[in-house]
Amino acid sequence: MSARAGIVVTGTEVLSGRVADGNGPWLSGRLRELGVDHAFTLIVGDRREDMERALAFLASSGVDVILTSGGLGPTADDVTAEVVGQFQGREMVLDNALEGRIGEILDRYMRRWPGLDREAIRASNRKQAIVPAGATILEPVGTAPGLVVPPSDSRGGPTVVVLPGPPRELQEMWPAATAAEALRAAIASATTYEQRTLRLYGIPESEIAETMRAAEANSPGLEGLEVTTCLRRGEIEVVTRFEPAASAEYAAFEELVRERHADTLFSTDGSTVDEQVAELLRSHAWTIATAESCTGGMLAGRLTDLAGSSEYVAGGLVVYSNEAKTALAGVPAALIERVGAVSTEVAEALADGARAALGAEVGVGITGIAGPGGATPGKPVGLVCFSVAGPDGARLTRSTRLPGGRADVRDRSTTVAMHLVRRLLRGEFDLPAT
Amino acid sequence: MSARAGIVVTGTEVLSGRVADGNGPWLSGRLRELGVDHAFTLIVGDRREDMERALAFLASSGVDVILTSGGLGPTADDVTAEVVGQFQGREMVLDNALEGRIGEILDRYMRRWPGLDREAIRASNRKQAIVPAGATILEPVGTAPGLVVPPSDSRGGPTVVVLPGPPRELQEMWPAATAAEALRAAIASATTYEQRTLRLYGIPESEIAETMRAAEANSPGLEGLEVTTCLRRGEIEVVTRFEPAASAEYAAFEELVRERHADTLFSTDGSTVDEQVAELLRSHAWTIATAESCTGGMLAGRLTDLAGSSEYVAGGLVVYSNEAKTALAGVPAALIERVGAVSTEVAEALADGARAALGAEVGVGITGIAGPGGATPGKPVGLVCFSVAGPDGARLTRSTRLPGGRADVRDRSTTVAMHLVRRLLRGEFDLPAT
Repeated sequence: MSARAGIVVTGTEVLSGRVADGNGPWLSGRLRELGVDHAFTLIVGDRREDMERALAFLASSGVDVILTSGGLGPTADDVTAEVVGQFQGREMVLDNALEGRIGEILDRYMRRWPGLDREAIRASNRKQAIVPAGATILEPVGTAPGLVVPPSDSRGGPTVVVLPGPPRELQEMWPAATAAEALRAAIASATTYEQRTLRLYGIPESEIAETMRAAEANSPGLEGLEVTTCLRRGEIEVVTRFEPAASAEYAAFEELVRERHADTLFSTDGSTVDEQVAELLRSHAWTIATAESCTGGMLAGRLTDLAGSSEYVAGGLVVYSNEAKTALAGVPAALIERVGAVSTEVAEALADGARAALGAEVGVGITGIAGPGGATPGKPVGLVCFSVAGPDGARLTRSTRLPGGRADVRDRSTTVAMHLVRRLLRGEFDLPAT
Repeated sequence: MSARAGIVVTGTEVLSGRVADGNGPWLSGRLRELGVDHAFTLIVGDRREDMERALAFLASSGVDVILTSGGLGPTADDVTAEVVGQFQGREMVLDNALEGRIGEILDRYMRRWPGLDREAIRASNRKQAIVPAGATILEPVGTAPGLVVPPSDSRGGPTVVVLPGPPRELQEMWPAATAAEALRAAIASATTYEQRTLRLYGIPESEIAETMRAAEANSPGLEGLEVTTCLRRGEIEVVTRFEPAASAEYAAFEELVRERHADTLFSTDGSTVDEQVAELLRSHAWTIATAESCTGGMLAGRLTDLAGSSEYVAGGLVVYSNEAKTALAGVPAALIERVGAVSTEVAEALADGARAALGAEVGVGITGIAGPGGATPGKPVGLVCFSVAGPDGARLTRSTRLPGGRADVRDRSTTVAMHLVRRLLRGEFDLPAT
């Protein structure tokens, strides 16, 4: 039996979707590293009684540890420390030494914000130094301290780790949390799981369903594998979690997927297409350049997401207008006139223009109709044309109609382009049907 | 008393953070439109007992309706329909007519995917047509039907609306769900809330805390306002929710924020800086162009997020290498040599180069060190220089050090740039300290 954990993300702004939560997913990854089974994430607004209910639910579900994020700020809607203290049966006390340390941090802030109101600062300072008696204090990264709060002796139940909401503060504070004795004791029973990821591109999810049925028929040991599949930015991701004793069963399962999906399985080691493209460009010692219309710079943004990308990204052109396509990427105005800006011919001219303008070995051209407007007869919203050009006339060009709204079409286009680049770099010019 | 709702998002890929959940936030917005109070979102893996626990928790919390997303696919880990049917005390039955309709959809798929395995298709078809007796069926958008499942007569409790996981399918299915009689009955007590959003840029959250304390002291009616504040991409968002009877209290609160934060309050009507920049460019009938180094196209991508942006976005240059800065944006190599690529001088040359290369009225230059590598003495990771140039020599230039990791620095840089563009377009050349 592995130790189990639940996460409580607080904040009406997260519950209502005004802010996307990155803390739940990030903490989930850290729990996995610790060998702790993550069972639930609850998102609750800044309401005291809803937070209490969330804690009570997780305790009744038998988790050993609860991680909370958010609600440690200076405003009145920030009540996490107090709710957790009460839940764990601990009195709230002012920690004078902590108040002093927070005060020093705030003094530094004041120098950066000369117009600041000292009265506001002092009030928030005091509030953030009132903590549950007996809790381990995690030193502030911003201004808010974190807490590790075990249950009081008379109660039992999970230990609660209270972390701040800003992702950078939460992440920097995490090592101190894992070093706390109270947390280590709570997860003492953790076992280590293995996790493996397979990624496929270019088949529907139902094909994987059939492969899993075949795997179950072949091998009764498959019960030792927790397999989940999902669609993600146009790819299928198959993630398997298992205890080390089941590694032979996993190897058999992976072999079956390799056999049945040789054409579309592109990653068995957890690498993403982004990482593979980076590695391929490095190994060729080639640079890449983009000329983007409908994606408006998103592919260049994606290529430069990875640290060290300056080694192989020369740069790019965002050629939203027809004039820019001609002036910057050298697409003949007559060609646009004849076949239209959204065409495989213009995509090819963009790819060539990107190579030439940036002096790169690989050029990518994207032109399409992201919507909601812009459709013309025969050219519906979602139609996107791609071309990737390499040295010696190497080229892959395709046109496809992508589903979804404007944001989906733009995002999915970057995935299609990444896979075309990957194939060109691997010398695979024989594209599958999709 | 308003009707209350909970959301259950299923999927180990979402729980573990491999896929960011967009469905919880989207559904939260729809509940708000219906006047339903959204109390909790639970994220659970593809484990039957955890899903049962999540449903039981929400029922015991007294919600009137539960929305689920995901777990309707063809693979064995997709168990939502069955778990919900059992939870509501309803038998699972094969709906022959539905099986036929799903079959027709799959026939269309097969034409698109010529290599498809018909056996896999048929098996998944049948599984997706087995539904709880008495449920309202929501016609498939992809291949999976949704469901509205009221409790069986003997039980009471919340009505459960079962929706597919892919965001596009879920969103297209939503109107059918809200039209279902069983859902309308469950939320009959819904009241309408007003919601207002204020956005500020350039002050710390503690300043807002002090304003709220002042507001509470001034006006005892503030209890009728549910105010939440959060930091978001470098801005502060203050969202207030209230019943229509409290609108005078809200007006007084907004007036107080206007008085105290005139310099930094940039939106009182819910508009984002992105929308304001779009509107300002339209009203000047100007176009904008970018030359980006460390953000690698992300600002151009952000400017083209909005539909209709082709009216005012001319295009952009992604000038990651020094050679590209010189060749495309005309930054003198000698200048880079003298002051370094990360400098306000180069940012200004980039802004000018973007204007010239794209023939735009407004040019934006960004150059900085996103990290983790690239720092030099006096130029730490996070240092980013910005310049915005307009007609007639109008210009705003600044240099700042942004906190966080590579992704934070890049994302935050686009926010700083958007606010500089906004100020230039409004003719505000007197920048506050931050």
